[in-house]
Amino acid sequence: DFLNAFQEIIPAFGASTDDLERCRVNGMVECGSRHEHIYQRAMLLVEQVKVSKGSPLITCLLEGPSGSGKTSLAATIGIDSDFPYVKIISAESMIGLSESSKCAKIVKVFEDAYKSQLSIIVLDDIERLIEYVAIGPRFSNIISQTLLVLIKRLPPKGKNMLVIGTTSEVSFLDSVGIRDAFSVTYHVPTLKTEDAKKVLQQLNVFSDDDIDAAAEALNDMPIKKLYMLIEMAAQGEHGGEAEAIYSGKEKIAISHFFDCLQDMIRY
Amino acid sequence: DFLNAFQEIIPAFGASTDDLERCRVNGMVECGSRHEHIYQRAMLLVEQVKVSKGSPLITCLLEGPSGSGKTSLAATIGIDSDFPYVKIISAESMIGLSESSKCAKIVKVFEDAYKSQLSIIVLDDIERLIEYVAIGPRFSNIISQTLLVLIKRLPPKGKNMLVIGTTSEVSFLDSVGIRDAFSVTYHVPTLKTEDAKKVLQQLNVFSDDDIDAAAEALNDMPIKKLYMLIEMAAQGEHGGEAEAIYSGKEKIAISHFFDCLQDMIRY
Amino acid sequence: DFLNAFQEIIPAFGASTDDLERCRVNGMVECGSRHEHIYQRAMLLVEQVKVSKGSPLITCLLEGPSGSGKTSLAATIGIDSDFPYVKIISAESMIGLSESSKCAKIVKVFEDAYKSQLSIIVLDDIERLIEYVAIGPRFSNIISQTLLVLIKRLPPKGKNMLVIGTTSEVSFLDSVGIRDAFSVTYHVPTLKTEDAKKVLQQLNVFSDDDIDAAAEALNDMPIKKLYMLIEMAAQGEHGGEAEAIYSGKEKIAISHFFDCLQDMIRY
Amino acid sequence: DFLNAFQEIIPAFGASTDDLERCRVNGMVECGSRHEHIYQRAMLLVEQVKVSKGSPLITCLLEGPSGSGKTSLAATIGIDSDFPYVKIISAESMIGLSESSKCAKIVKVFEDAYKSQLSIIVLDDIERLIEYVAIGPRFSNIISQTLLVLIKRLPPKGKNMLVIGTTSEVSFLDSVGIRDAFSVTYHVPTLKTEDAKKVLQQLNVFSDDDIDAAAEALNDMPIKKLYMLIEMAAQGEHGGEAEAIYSGKEKIAISHFFDCLQDMIRY
Amino acid sequence: DFLNAFQEIIPAFGASTDDLERCRVNGMVECGSRHEHIYQRAMLLVEQVKVSKGSPLITCLLEGPSGSGKTSLAATIGIDSDFPYVKIISAESMIGLSESSKCAKIVKVFEDAYKSQLSIIVLDDIERLIEYVAIGPRFSNIISQTLLVLIKRLPPKGKNMLVIGTTSEVSFLDSVGIRDAFSVTYHVPTLKTEDAKKVLQQLNVFSDDDIDAAAEALNDMPIKKLYMLIEMAAQGEHGGEAEAIYSGKEKIAISHFFDCLQDMIRY
Amino acid sequence: DFLNAFQEIIPAFGASTDDLERCRVNGMVECGSRHEHIYQRAMLLVEQVKVSKGSPLITCLLEGPSGSGKTSLAATIGIDSDFPYVKIISAESMIGLSESSKCAKIVKVFEDAYKSQLSIIVLDDIERLIEYVAIGPRFSNIISQTLLVLIKRLPPKGKNMLVIGTTSEVSFLDSVGIRDAFSVTYHVPTLKTEDAKKVLQQLNVFSDDDIDAAAEALNDMPIKKLYMLIEMAAQGEHGGEAEAIYSGKEKIAISHFFDCLQDMIRY
Ligand SMILES: Nc1ncnc2c1ncn2[C@@H]1O[C@H](COP(=O)(O)OP(=O)(O)OP(=O)(O)O)[C@@H](O)[C@H]1O
Ligand SMILES: Nc1ncnc2c1ncn2[C@@H]1O[C@H](COP(=O)(O)OP(=O)(O)OP(=O)(O)O)[C@@H](O)[C@H]1O
Ligand SMILES: Nc1ncnc2c1ncn2[C@@H]1O[C@H](COP(=O)(O)OP(=O)(O)OP(=O)(O)O)[C@@H](O)[C@H]1O
Ligand SMILES: Nc1ncnc2c1ncn2[C@@H]1O[C@H](COP(=O)(O)OP(=O)(O)OP(=O)(O)O)[C@@H](O)[C@H]1O
Ligand SMILES: Nc1ncnc2c1ncn2[C@@H]1O[C@H](COP(=O)(O)OP(=O)(O)OP(=O)(O)O)[C@@H](O)[C@H]1O
Ligand SMILES: Nc1ncnc2c1ncn2[C@@H]1O[C@H](COP(=O)(O)OP(=O)(O)OP(=O)(O)O)[C@@H](O)[C@H]1O
Ligand SMILES: [Mg+2]
Ligand SMILES: [Mg+2]
Ligand SMILES: [Mg+2]
Ligand SMILES: [Mg+2]
Ligand SMILES: [Mg+2]
Ligand SMILES: [Mg+2]
Repeated sequence: DFLNAFQEIIPAFGASTDDLERCRVNGMVECGSRHEHIYQRAMLLVEQVKVSKGSPLITCLLEGPSGSGKTSLAATIGIDSDFPYVKIISAESMIGLSESSKCAKIVKVFEDAYKSQLSIIVLDDIERLIEYVAIGPRFSNIISQTLLVLIKRLPPKGKNMLVIGTTSEVSFLDSVGIRDAFSVTYHVPTLKTEDAKKVLQQLNVFSDDDIDAAAEALNDMPIKKLYMLIEMAAQGEHGGEAEAIYSGKEKIAISHFFDCLQDMIRY
Repeated sequence: DFLNAFQEIIPAFGASTDDLERCRVNGMVECGSRHEHIYQRAMLLVEQVKVSKGSPLITCLLEGPSGSGKTSLAATIGIDSDFPYVKIISAESMIGLSESSKCAKIVKVFEDAYKSQLSIIVLDDIERLIEYVAIGPRFSNIISQTLLVLIKRLPPKGKNMLVIGTTSEVSFLDSVGIRDAFSVTYHVPTLKTEDAKKVLQQLNVFSDDDIDAAAEALNDMPIKKLYMLIEMAAQGEHGGEAEAIYSGKEKIAISHFFDCLQDMIRY
Repeated sequence: DFLNAFQEIIPAFGASTDDLERCRVNGMVECGSRHEHIYQRAMLLVEQVKVSKGSPLITCLLEGPSGSGKTSLAATIGIDSDFPYVKIISAESMIGLSESSKCAKIVKVFEDAYKSQLSIIVLDDIERLIEYVAIGPRFSNIISQTLLVLIKRLPPKGKNMLVIGTTSEVSFLDSVGIRDAFSVTYHVPTLKTEDAKKVLQQLNVFSDDDIDAAAEALNDMPIKKLYMLIEMAAQGEHGGEAEAIYSGKEKIAISHFFDCLQDMIRY
Repeated sequence: DFLNAFQEIIPAFGASTDDLERCRVNGMVECGSRHEHIYQRAMLLVEQVKVSKGSPLITCLLEGPSGSGKTSLAATIGIDSDFPYVKIISAESMIGLSESSKCAKIVKVFEDAYKSQLSIIVLDDIERLIEYVAIGPRFSNIISQTLLVLIKRLPPKGKNMLVIGTTSEVSFLDSVGIRDAFSVTYHVPTLKTEDAKKVLQQLNVFSDDDIDAAAEALNDMPIKKLYMLIEMAAQGEHGGEAEAIYSGKEKIAISHFFDCLQDMIRY
Repeated sequence: DFLNAFQEIIPAFGASTDDLERCRVNGMVECGSRHEHIYQRAMLLVEQVKVSKGSPLITCLLEGPSGSGKTSLAATIGIDSDFPYVKIISAESMIGLSESSKCAKIVKVFEDAYKSQLSIIVLDDIERLIEYVAIGPRFSNIISQTLLVLIKRLPPKGKNMLVIGTTSEVSFLDSVGIRDAFSVTYHVPTLKTEDAKKVLQQLNVFSDDDIDAAAEALNDMPIKKLYMLIEMAAQGEHGGEAEAIYSGKEKIAISHFFDCLQDMIRY
Repeated sequence: DFLNAFQEIIPAFGASTDDLERCRVNGMVECGSRHEHIYQRAMLLVEQVKVSKGSPLITCLLEGPSGSGKTSLAATIGIDSDFPYVKIISAESMIGLSESSKCAKIVKVFEDAYKSQLSIIVLDDIERLIEYVAIGPRFSNIISQTLLVLIKRLPPKGKNMLVIGTTSEVSFLDSVGIRDAFSVTYHVPTLKTEDAKKVLQQLNVFSDDDIDAAAEALNDMPIKKLYMLIEMAAQGEHGGEAEAIYSGKEKIAISHFFDCLQDMIRY
């Protein structure tokens, strides 16, 4: 049957540290004070959850443009919390399920978490979880209602929980009342020129002469696209140069870099 | 199956006093004359139900912004009534059920109540019960129709009943005719500066010098958010100060309090 | 199963005189010439049905604001007709049924009535029968179509029938063509000051000095709300006075009456 | 089950002459030249069907305001045709059926007719057959499509057929393309003063002095409402006069007639 | 069951020459150069299909007002092609089937055709196949998608196919992308005065004096309506003249012809 | 059952090189620098996928007007990549399947690909895969959501994948967020006069005198339509000339070519 079709590659539901690691496939580099600030505030919430008596449930939403680093940030907070129960709920692991099966899976993760003294649940790409498309708009009201209740329902006495949501469609979440249901919201931004420069220095693929021009051109780019772009450029105009670039033997030709940039932002 | 997935943690349907207590997780403090007035009026309705001959059914709606204290107020009235049958119907206990199962559960509570001489039913967060989202708008008409009939249907001869509804979406309830179906409606407000000050004095976490500035900043805040905010601030800028604050050894730094406030209302 | 959940309290489908009595829980008082006129005209229709050769089916709609006394009036006509078959079809007895089950129940009542020489069927709160909400608007087209056909379908040869509908949403019924399908329509109004005064005199709960002021304030109120309001006021400001008032020992304090009035019409 | 609920009173599907007779419950009187003209034209179509070689299928739509006499006219044509197969398809005999069952029943009538050398099928109240309501608008597209095909599908070689449709919603039928699918359309009008006078003379319930005033007041009334109104008026102001009126002993009091008229057209 | 209800009269799916003949019930007469031109172009496509190497699939849409002769034209092309496989797919043979059954039937015809070296498929009245109504608009997206794919899917290697579509709703087909999916489109027009005259001469039912006036009045009429009209007129004012007219003994009275014309175009 | 109806001609799901070849039924000719540029850039992505460490998934969208050569281009890239796993997912092979079956088939192809070190998946005509029509608009949200997740889900560790999408409805894909989900997008254009001339020279069916006029007339035509047009013209005015033209014995008559062109663009 349908479910079996992809069962083989999906391990037990929930995210082991491995799964969390896979969420930040390019690792974490320093990319400016605004990302840093969000990380620190979120870690304060982690601590609050640990000691809270009056607020057994704290909820926090990370919103920002596509590719700005939300999922990586959420995964990192989960890893660094050292909580016994950290799970990520993402649409990837629920492809092809019916709306009600998705609800059941989501509820199951919360129920499991309620058994743990301290837990973190990441609701990744909430608009995808609720099957949102802008046209219409359409989305699953059943899943929306389930989330609306779950992110306000208190865990049983004596259990504390942190819920982290991520989204690229904050205005939609607003219009269905999900943004308001979170205690706090942080905006994860694209990179400014200075942030991009910091990242490029760490990657070390441009000559010192080119790095400023490159960083300038990357102003307002999300970090995920930056990584894709650098890798395209590292191929060279005729392919085959990647190894030389990454080993440090050569640098990326700035003109080819601009060509690739244009492919990416043509529209 | 799906239903079993969360059966374990849901006790028999309905609310024991324990469940009602859990609805006011931070207890009840004095928070101004407007909240007080509503409580007194509602208690008069409780008495009317006790003695009424001509109105076997009285219905009352508590509406107000998110977090203004509606559920806690309704739970308190239920507890203080000393009626033999007091139940709260909330979306929490019906997550993932189909619309018709939700109807059946709701009807069941009313049927049970009809067997009692005197009963109170709290319909908590009616917009959530009927699966409302603003976009569309969408909601369950089946559940709406069920509620519309139930809140006008007389209990059998000799039985009297009080129904208390709560909602943050009174204009929506108005547009589906549910608000009109209630006998009376009370507006549960956010806190004014003076109300907030009264609450802060009872919590005793600010120094006398700061309390006025803090209360001023809290003008127009719902009481539920006030509790969340105070707890965040009590962690201190670097975490770990909560115990000292709550034990009275230290006070909340007013500057950190303002930082936290900004996180919460950034939008 | 679901249906069983409320079977216990619903007796055999249809309305015995008991059920009709329960529809006018506060009894019938004189409340002005306009109500009286409708009653007399409707009783003429009752007689027409008795003797008609050419019109085996007569249909009549009572429309008016919520609480204006429509259901009580229809029940009274049914009781006073002395017809062998008088049934009330109301949403109360069909809570939670599917649209098609509701249709079947409604059809069943008509089929039963067709066996009787003379019959009256009350379609109470038609907008509720067809599951109407103003948003959308939404309603059950299946039930609407069934009603549209039933209120125009002739009974078998030799049988005569009167159908009385009630509604608070006459403009909606108009837009789906149901109002036009009725032979005649009567508007059941709210009370004017003089009507209200007449009612208050019969209830005898105000001192002679206050009765005019009270009646003035009640201008344009539906009779059902008037009853609820009087009962609230009869409790007194601090509760416990109801018995003294109703026994005639004391009168309602006019100032408390105005307070209660304000609670009811705050919006 | 549901279907059985009303099987008892529905005889075998289709219309015997009895059923056709029941469609004109008040018989047929002369009501003006415009009705007459339509009858004659339709009888020409009946003859054309009898002799046609090139047009095995002729279709004709009777449209006009509610109660103008469409169904009676169609039934009369069917009766007067003397065709071996004459059936009326009306919503009355399909109450509560699903859309696809309705389709199947309709198709069945056509299939039966195809076996007859000459046949007439009356599609009565087409808007009701396709479950139309103006709001939305909503209707059954499945049934609409079935009708659209059936009224253009040729019978088998050697069989000829006349289809007569009736409707009060010609502009709706136009918008779904059904009106265009008919070969010809005739408008069945309300009565003009002179037509009404002719009818009243035949009924003989007014004194000669009153008949002109009455006819004047009936200008633009559909004939079906005229019958209902006369019967109401014949009851007299206090009931009980009907027999005397119809036996010719007394005449209708013109003032009471105007009262009844007002009840009917109040809106 | 439902399907069986009309199986008797539907032979094996697909169109034998007989079925194609039945599509032009009045035969084919010359009706002007524009119809002629389309016929010739379409026959060129037939030849192209025979010899093509690079275009195994050619598709052609005939669009024009209701009754302009599209189906007859398509059937004639099919008959004259002498291809081994010629089938017409029309809504008539799929009445009452579900959308997915219709899809399956349509796909089946294509699959069958793929087995033939050379094949023609006529998709008759495409708007009816996809259950289109203008209100909404509504239509079957499942069937639309199936057609969109089928009219672009290449037959297996070595097989060539011509698909002819007909429609009276070309602007709708345009808006769902079906018109664009056809290689070429031809517009089948109504008759101009001179075309009508040519047809009337062949029918020989008017006197020479009247034929020009008649043709003039028929300007812009579709040929199918012309046939229906002539037959109505041939009945004569009082019926019974048809035989005399068609045998050539008498001619149609021009005044009666104009009367009939008016019945047809009254709106 | 339905599925079996067309199983015979569908081989195992997925595209062998044969299937890819069948996608470019007229082979590949040079048609200008813009097509060439896209091909080269896409081949660079192929190489990047081969060596990438940080981007296990690269996605690329080819968009352009109907017939501009997108599918042929995608198939060519797949063939030239020499990757062990190259599959094309197209609506053709999923005709008549339910939405969820389509999802399952699509997921299956991805799961299969994940087992391969290097893979290419072509999502052909994405708007057709998601059952899009412009009216409404309507489309399958289930399939859209599945695609949205699949084109962002990373393959398992150590596997690299290239996804190529094609579409003629890029603005629709934009509005459902699918275009944004691709890493890069290339626009496949229609032919300019000079491109058309290059193609005509290769086809060698015009005399040298006519080739410029022909190319001029073909400005802005998609290459697929060019092929269809040339073949129509090659038939000659009276048919039968195709062989002589293609063998080079004769040339296409330019006037007939213009006639055919007009048939094609009449609207
Ligand atoms: N400081 C950082 N913060 C976040 N991401 C980082 C950082 N440093 C490097 N990265 C890399 O940047 C990428 C961020 O992608 P991520 O998937 O987290 O973005 P996203 O906002 O969740 O995207 P989407 O909107 O598509 O869900 C990851 O590959 C991650 O390894
Ligand atoms: N006098 C009071 N009235 C109401 N709540 C109070 C009062 N004093 C303290 N509280 C606390 O304030 C909080 C009010 O939250 P509550 O859930 O009742 O608000 P709500 O209006 O129902 O919120 P929501 O709109 O989210 O349903 C509770 O934690 C309660 O313990
Ligand atoms: N003369 C009267 N006519 C109608 N109702 C009366 C009269 N005298 C007293 N009553 C009382 O007034 C109340 C009228 O309520 P009723 O339910 O009939 O109103 P309604 O218009 O049907 O309300 P709703 O719109 O809620 O259905 C009843 O309690 C009835 O006993
Ligand atoms: N000449 C006549 N033509 C039509 N009806 C007549 C005529 N004479 C008398 N009648 C009576 O008038 C009434 C016409 O009602 P009928 O049901 O035919 O109207 P209708 O237009 O079909 O109404 P509806 O719009 O409700 O379907 C019938 O009772 C019929 O007996
Ligand atoms: N040259 C002709 N071309 C087409 N039809 C002709 C011609 N000569 C005679 N006819 C007759 O005209 C009629 C055309 O009707 P046909 O059903 O083909 O029209 P249509 O455009 O398909 O109508 P519809 O829009 O209702 O599907 C047929 O009865 C056919 O026999
Ligand atoms: N250089 C080329 N690039 C693309 N197609 C070419 C080229 N040379 C010849 N062709 C031919 O042109 C046609 C292009 O059609 P193709 O189906 O690829 O277009 P498409 O854009 O996918 O069309 P659609 O929008 O209908 O899906 C094919 O028959 C192909 O063989
Ligand atoms: Mg993410
Ligand atoms: Mg609450
Ligand atoms: Mg009522
Ligand atoms: Mg009728
Ligand atoms: Mg046709
Ligand atoms: Mg393509």
